[in-house]
Amino acid sequence: MPHSSKAPGVAAPRARIEIFDTTLRDGTQSEHIAYSLADKLDIAHELDALGVDYIEAGWPGSNPKDQAFFDAAQFETWTHARITAFGSTRHAKNAPSDDPNLQALVASRAPVLIIFGKSWDFHVTDALRVSLDENLAMIESSVKYLSGLCKEMLYDAEHFFDGYKHNPAYAMKSLHAAANAGAKCLILCDTNGGTLPPELGKIAGDVVKEFPSIRIGIHPHNDSGVAVANALAAVEAGACHVQGTINGFGERCGNVDLLPVIANLQLKMNRDCLRGRESLRKLTEVSRHVYEVGNIAPRDNQPFVGRSAFAHKGGIHVSAVARAASTYEHVEPEAVGNTRRVLISELSGRSNLVAAMGHKYNLKDNPAALKKVLNRVMELENQGYIFEAAEASFELLVRKTLLAHQPFFKLHGFRVLTDITDKNESITEATVKIEVGGRIEHTAAEGNGPVNALDIALRKALEEFYPELKDVTLADYKVRVIDSKLATGAKVLVTIVSSDHKSRWTTVGVSPNVIDASWHALVDSVEYKLYQTRAGTQTGVKSLAEAVMTA
Amino acid sequence: MPHSSKAPGVAAPRARIEIFDTTLRDGTQSEHIAYSLADKLDIAHELDALGVDYIEAGWPGSNPKDQAFFDAAQFETWTHARITAFGSTRHAKNAPSDDPNLQALVASRAPVLIIFGKSWDFHVTDALRVSLDENLAMIESSVKYLSGLCKEMLYDAEHFFDGYKHNPAYAMKSLHAAANAGAKCLILCDTNGGTLPPELGKIAGDVVKEFPSIRIGIHPHNDSGVAVANALAAVEAGACHVQGTINGFGERCGNVDLLPVIANLQLKMNRDCLRGRESLRKLTEVSRHVYEVGNIAPRDNQPFVGRSAFAHKGGIHVSAVARAASTYEHVEPEAVGNTRRVLISELSGRSNLVAAMGHKYNLKDNPAALKKVLNRVMELENQGYIFEAAEASFELLVRKTLLAHQPFFKLHGFRVLTDITDKNESITEATVKIEVGGRIEHTAAEGNGPVNALDIALRKALEEFYPELKDVTLADYKVRVIDSKLATGAKVLVTIVSSDHKSRWTTVGVSPNVIDASWHALVDSVEYKLYQTRAGTQTGVKSLAEAVMTA
Repeated sequence: MPHSSKAPGVAAPRARIEIFDTTLRDGTQSEHIAYSLADKLDIAHELDALGVDYIEAGWPGSNPKDQAFFDAAQFETWTHARITAFGSTRHAKNAPSDDPNLQALVASRAPVLIIFGKSWDFHVTDALRVSLDENLAMIESSVKYLSGLCKEMLYDAEHFFDGYKHNPAYAMKSLHAAANAGAKCLILCDTNGGTLPPELGKIAGDVVKEFPSIRIGIHPHNDSGVAVANALAAVEAGACHVQGTINGFGERCGNVDLLPVIANLQLKMNRDCLRGRESLRKLTEVSRHVYEVGNIAPRDNQPFVGRSAFAHKGGIHVSAVARAASTYEHVEPEAVGNTRRVLISELSGRSNLVAAMGHKYNLKDNPAALKKVLNRVMELENQGYIFEAAEASFELLVRKTLLAHQPFFKLHGFRVLTDITDKNESITEATVKIEVGGRIEHTAAEGNGPVNALDIALRKALEEFYPELKDVTLADYKVRVIDSKLATGAKVLVTIVSSDHKSRWTTVGVSPNVIDASWHALVDSVEYKLYQTRAGTQTGVKSLAEAVMTA
Repeated sequence: MPHSSKAPGVAAPRARIEIFDTTLRDGTQSEHIAYSLADKLDIAHELDALGVDYIEAGWPGSNPKDQAFFDAAQFETWTHARITAFGSTRHAKNAPSDDPNLQALVASRAPVLIIFGKSWDFHVTDALRVSLDENLAMIESSVKYLSGLCKEMLYDAEHFFDGYKHNPAYAMKSLHAAANAGAKCLILCDTNGGTLPPELGKIAGDVVKEFPSIRIGIHPHNDSGVAVANALAAVEAGACHVQGTINGFGERCGNVDLLPVIANLQLKMNRDCLRGRESLRKLTEVSRHVYEVGNIAPRDNQPFVGRSAFAHKGGIHVSAVARAASTYEHVEPEAVGNTRRVLISELSGRSNLVAAMGHKYNLKDNPAALKKVLNRVMELENQGYIFEAAEASFELLVRKTLLAHQPFFKLHGFRVLTDITDKNESITEATVKIEVGGRIEHTAAEGNGPVNALDIALRKALEEFYPELKDVTLADYKVRVIDSKLATGAKVLVTIVSSDHKSRWTTVGVSPNVIDASWHALVDSVEYKLYQTRAGTQTGVKSLAEAVMTA
């Protein structure tokens, strides 16, 4: 039984859809996003490798950081993407050759230039405060001037749909002004994000009919929650160019997220874009990379690329997916570079645990062992633990529940002290006292904060016995209040991501005390690493799969 | 100029759209969500007050927590919503009266029952493993049996769209089985979330035509990123019942988010639901309440209700919105209970700061003061501060930049010690030494963790001088690594929400040391409160608006 991703009877492939990425320009209007020049170059190369057609990298007239990108971009190699600079039409009082904004575009030396102009009569008279004819002249003369000074000239019709709804004739005239002046693609912007797909598709179709020999593009925003559907509706109506951002970054509710647009176009609508299936398999990686560079927490439930997009929790779903993945998955996770996950949770019954651990540890074949593990999971979940995002802590739980756990070290105690003086000088010191094989180690370390100091002191104490811990570093650290309704005494969940340059693993700790919770997560991280390197060699430690059968 | 939210030429109101909320059933399949019974009752009352028609509260046959809700719900008062219990058709081997799942539904005593059955032939034969005819008999007999034992019987056609695409005749037969047996509404589920709006609308239209005298509903999932558009497409095609969750909680990519569905139906499509405009104005509050109960961080860019949904950062947008809000807003924020925000950020130029602070402090009229504040903002943003979410810290910044700041107290130093023994007993103690008006206070306090202990010790020291601090409590506390690329030495941003039962305010602190960062946020919280109560009375402290003019 194939996945149901392809509707039956899809026609032969039609025109390729151009992908125009504006993560680095419109996307930076997101709250909380501010990129350095290095960040922008990093993302631009990621987009180029993905195969996008245009990278809109900034508005050189608006701030010096954007100009710095264009200066640097000239000396970089771009395999496919065309670097694009954004700006507005000339000011009403200026000739194109005297207009600072148009001059900044020319000075950017970007091969592709794009300017936006007004299509909504109300905006012309009330925001720009010029006559309707003057606005048309501004569009035409700006596009004509720049067309001669770049390789390709594009035109963004700002507020096109709102304009068309109020005064279709004038909105259409503004497009003709740009087309007559040499624009190679007319992009219809739903700037306020207020248009719904049926109306947007109809209007886009009117424009496609009006301009049979010029490319029409779409630039949707997500204020109504239908940006993806709007991009697809425009393509259905004949548009062949989509503007958006990776992960839907952008002002207010964001620009359209290009990732589901690309996936739907290729997997559902049989429309080619980027470099086809090869690019499609990179979508998840690109999504996560862009979050990481922006230091933004990924959205777990993001369509196609989110960590939960192919995660199964409900017991019924899990057993069905184990039989045939297409029963509860609309496409194959691998097609977009994502992976299927089976979640561990009290609500889901036993199927999940069996599916998650079954192959690895034979839990399926030993109901007594399964029951012990389930009971322990429920006990800890009642304390506030969440194992769904912490596979390493979960694996330790299985291990410790089923095997006589022989600890790698014994804790005698630790202390963390932070001292801030009246000169605002701070010092944090941790002391850790542990015992390994009868020998006591008592170490101290300073750190940037309590967890950093504890981590250093603990590893300092253990490295003599377990030198492989030298390779381990803390890659990320998060704290979340898990019961904010208790004013004091609320518990916190600490999540630590560790890395040894080969792999990454996630551990968790829960306690009313953030230091204590961090300690539990740190110890799990160390123990997980030691089980990886030493399981089977240490007395009493055998392989989990072996152990499960005798538990 | 009116907002462009109503398309011109909208027809007279048609049939009211029923809103069926499944936050408490399908929504709990979200990763990271687990409600207590008290949480479920809390959310149910919030939904009832909003005016939803149905509250699907659980699957009594699947777990004891859900049954406990139905037991409790019988003794609660519901003003409008009908409490609904969910389950599956009978097992193939059971008679309805012997089937444990159907019996659990009856025992729930919920006034409305809903069961799901299979419409996709492949699922019947490969997942259920019964014959196609047997499945129809299971649907018909289950619906018939339950119809006699509840006030209203509804039917969910699972995987309806996938089923219809593969075998339309069989999918339609499964609906007839439920309709013949007495189901009052047939709900078409896009269970895998893989269908795009044009196809979904067409299929829903086929069903509406096939059943002219029965209500048709829609239950979309968001795996393709088009769930909202799918709900609206079904309504366009004649459906009058929409199933979804608050905030789009749900397995994988979530169920459809009911909030934009409701807002689009009322504001854009002129379709009535809930209690009309009155309910609409509650959407933002309901969204945030449900996040809070689930202890899930709200999604800032969520359409209509997100914190950023009407936030303006770009300089051009900000000046235009100041002239006419509809230039960059598709609906009025007040219509959905949200508010407009103007963000403070280096990228946005001066317009934002003027708009944010202008009216309050006359900054607009004093360019020198404005420049000083801007410079200070940029200096701190370079250190990692983010003021966009911390208005209280921002107001203190303006104050301290423009006025000779006379501190409310002087810090001589503090110390925090966490000690964990080999018996895993932990103790955290903070000592704080401050000076107010020449008098030194040296206090100590224990707490659940370092920040809690510091907070208590600081307020203990200050309360004698400033008794109003007794009313202040910490409502929330968050830590975020702001430069995770530095393995050690990464800075953290601590955000604290404080409350005095009348208002809430947010402050931030940044430091490589989490204790130090927390201290800065705590001090800002205390100073903000003291400026509220004491500005103007303390020497050297005058009103900001007054001060700006002389700065």
